[in-house]
Amino acid sequence: MRVELLCTGDELVTGLITDTNSPWFEAQLFQLGVKVDRTLLVGDVRPDITQALLEVASRADVVLVSGGLGPTLDDFTLECAAAAAGVPLVEDPQVLQWLKERYAQRNVPLNPGAFRMARVPQGAEVVRNPLGSAPMVILRLGRARLFFVPGVPREYRALAEGEVLPRIRALLGSDPERVYRAFRLLRTVGIPESQLDATVAPLVPQHPRVVFGFRTHAPENHLKLMATAPTQAEADAALAAAEAASRQLLGTAVFSADDEEYASVLAKLLTRAGATLATAESCTGGLIAQQLTAVSGASTFFIGGAVSYAEKMKVAWAGVPSEVLARHTAVSRETASAMAEGVRAVCGTTYGLSVTGYAGPTGGTSEDPVGTVYCALAAEGAPTRSERFSLMGDRDRVRLFAATSALEMLRQRLLAGPSVP
Amino acid sequence: MRVELLCTGDELVTGLITDTNSPWFEAQLFQLGVKVDRTLLVGDVRPDITQALLEVASRADVVLVSGGLGPTLDDFTLECAAAAAGVPLVEDPQVLQWLKERYAQRNVPLNPGAFRMARVPQGAEVVRNPLGSAPMVILRLGRARLFFVPGVPREYRALAEGEVLPRIRALLGSDPERVYRAFRLLRTVGIPESQLDATVAPLVPQHPRVVFGFRTHAPENHLKLMATAPTQAEADAALAAAEAASRQLLGTAVFSADDEEYASVLAKLLTRAGATLATAESCTGGLIAQQLTAVSGASTFFIGGAVSYAEKMKVAWAGVPSEVLARHTAVSRETASAMAEGVRAVCGTTYGLSVTGYAGPTGGTSEDPVGTVYCALAAEGAPTRSERFSLMGDRDRVRLFAATSALEMLRQRLLAGPSVP
Repeated sequence: MRVELLCTGDELVTGLITDTNSPWFEAQLFQLGVKVDRTLLVGDVRPDITQALLEVASRADVVLVSGGLGPTLDDFTLECAAAAAGVPLVEDPQVLQWLKERYAQRNVPLNPGAFRMARVPQGAEVVRNPLGSAPMVILRLGRARLFFVPGVPREYRALAEGEVLPRIRALLGSDPERVYRAFRLLRTVGIPESQLDATVAPLVPQHPRVVFGFRTHAPENHLKLMATAPTQAEADAALAAAEAASRQLLGTAVFSADDEEYASVLAKLLTRAGATLATAESCTGGLIAQQLTAVSGASTFFIGGAVSYAEKMKVAWAGVPSEVLARHTAVSRETASAMAEGVRAVCGTTYGLSVTGYAGPTGGTSEDPVGTVYCALAAEGAPTRSERFSLMGDRDRVRLFAATSALEMLRQRLLAGPSVP
Repeated sequence: MRVELLCTGDELVTGLITDTNSPWFEAQLFQLGVKVDRTLLVGDVRPDITQALLEVASRADVVLVSGGLGPTLDDFTLECAAAAAGVPLVEDPQVLQWLKERYAQRNVPLNPGAFRMARVPQGAEVVRNPLGSAPMVILRLGRARLFFVPGVPREYRALAEGEVLPRIRALLGSDPERVYRAFRLLRTVGIPESQLDATVAPLVPQHPRVVFGFRTHAPENHLKLMATAPTQAEADAALAAAEAASRQLLGTAVFSADDEEYASVLAKLLTRAGATLATAESCTGGLIAQQLTAVSGASTFFIGGAVSYAEKMKVAWAGVPSEVLARHTAVSRETASAMAEGVRAVCGTTYGLSVTGYAGPTGGTSEDPVGTVYCALAAEGAPTRSERFSLMGDRDRVRLFAATSALEMLRQRLLAGPSVP
């Protein structure tokens, strides 16, 4: 089955808006085993849209056309469709009725723009839009089925998912070349993309039905597994085998699969261990506390975070002895340890986690240049662990990876065993 | 001048990657007065790419083609270009020399994949890639000029900006229909998008050369002004007039123009006033401290931030009297005021800023449901100001707008006059 996407709108060819509808729909189709052949973006120019409709209809079995269905004068996609099909635009009584109901509900009089939305190419099928005024329109042009939907992302997705995909699925049912797919996203931290790639490389020839893909979402690196097979059961089995083998090689670097966020994983580990946490942050300035408290229910494990930016606040809030600061400076292994131990004591928690470092672009010393970060983890009844990290990149990146480096010390500790001795 | 963009790659038609190169380049061209006619994304299928090249070349004066120039077997865009032009692929000695230098620099032997990158359509012009191996290639096809660049965003942008745009600018010099443009982005907070629209609506008919556009980037709303005129001077003058009129209507809701971030504006105001700041956050969990410390040099004004999540930390770090908590609860105007005053006293700063509230999805009371947030601003020698906000949306959105509501109290105060009495 040949599928093409056609998106209309000046905003799409002038850089004002990035088309995110198409990648979303392409991914939906790909999961059904269908690869889109072409995605075409055209500005609001009548002859260009008409010409594009004729071209896509000459090649494709199914075309999703979006944009230009609204009430304003630059909405003329259906006009172009009628011209391409050689039929007139006619007022559809069913659509007019939907519009009347919708406008009445909102106490707005039906204006000339609204009437425009009721005019569809003669012979077209119409489908009600659950979230907006402009209906979905289905038109046969040659052997192609054209589905017209609004470009507004909410309405696009509702109609594409609720109305277009089921129709494509039905058409696929009778397609002898149909293939099936299964996906898994394994999310890792603490392992560079090139190392992730090299680690799983030996698996690739052993799993011929699975494509191994890599993506970076700093500070995370993702391994995307995609299985393709003639039946869904075979695709699922191929995926499960590749996933198990990948997890074995990557170990605890994999913190979650698919949609689960890092902070949410850590929240679960803390909650399961019945542990509580306090943080003392310097260069990360609250980034760790903010990530953890983004999780609903964080108050069960998160007691407090000191953003001890000035030295005196490291003393006052995190209980760092002035002598430690005087002897070792604020950016040192000793200060990081004192911050972790101090904040744990002040907050009375199971764990105390700290970060201090030079995020840049200025600061640093010859021994500890910009990008140097010390993290420490203090735990009830256990020696405090501290680590030094040399991080690359700009201020934002150093802060991001500093936060992750600290959180990883905690996650690995929680994975290693019971939190309270 | 007709310009089209052609992007190749399976990842672009399967939803794996969103094409952000094209919107970026479209915006660059639009600033030059050129609107792209079509942007076409095609998968890695030889006949589809060859056919697409012939189509775009039959219509456009200039085509930017991206992707498929690398060393692997699925990189065959130049093969398709040679087929479309009816010429053979030939090894280019200049490109081979560049590749040898690049591989020698990295101590990597030239492999068969590298040799592939040296094969270009006969008669094509080549341009060195400053950031990668695959060169840029320029080919005439009919009356069209085709520019081939890699799809990797860094390399795409470097070549599009450094090599393609100057050539388009030179071609435009002789274009009698050329128009000129000027842009300004006015960034606002604290004013809903619909109100922003309604406020500047009366200006629209008075500035016929300027398009007024609106965009939401929560928690900010942006007014985009775009002037078009036959000369650059007229475009600049039309823009300046529309900007001045818009600023007069919007007042201090406009916090910056173009690229300047909110936190950076606040940092400048604090630094200019010689003022220092401490924060005490509950439901925002460090979001305010994290935003402010993202600004380089934050240590000149930011002393410390208490993420006093548990009640006892509001007492210990922000000096909130236990009686206030007992009588008014943690989410109350009184607690917010005590947090702001307490953290200011503990840190010895000019200002103390606080937030406490119910971010949801659980919690809240019948008087103060989820979304209720109290913020307070304490200042040296002035009465403490506190405000109650009713915020809509999910946990992330409530936290984001809570942080902005608090920061706005500080920004408006700093704008109103000298900080220290």
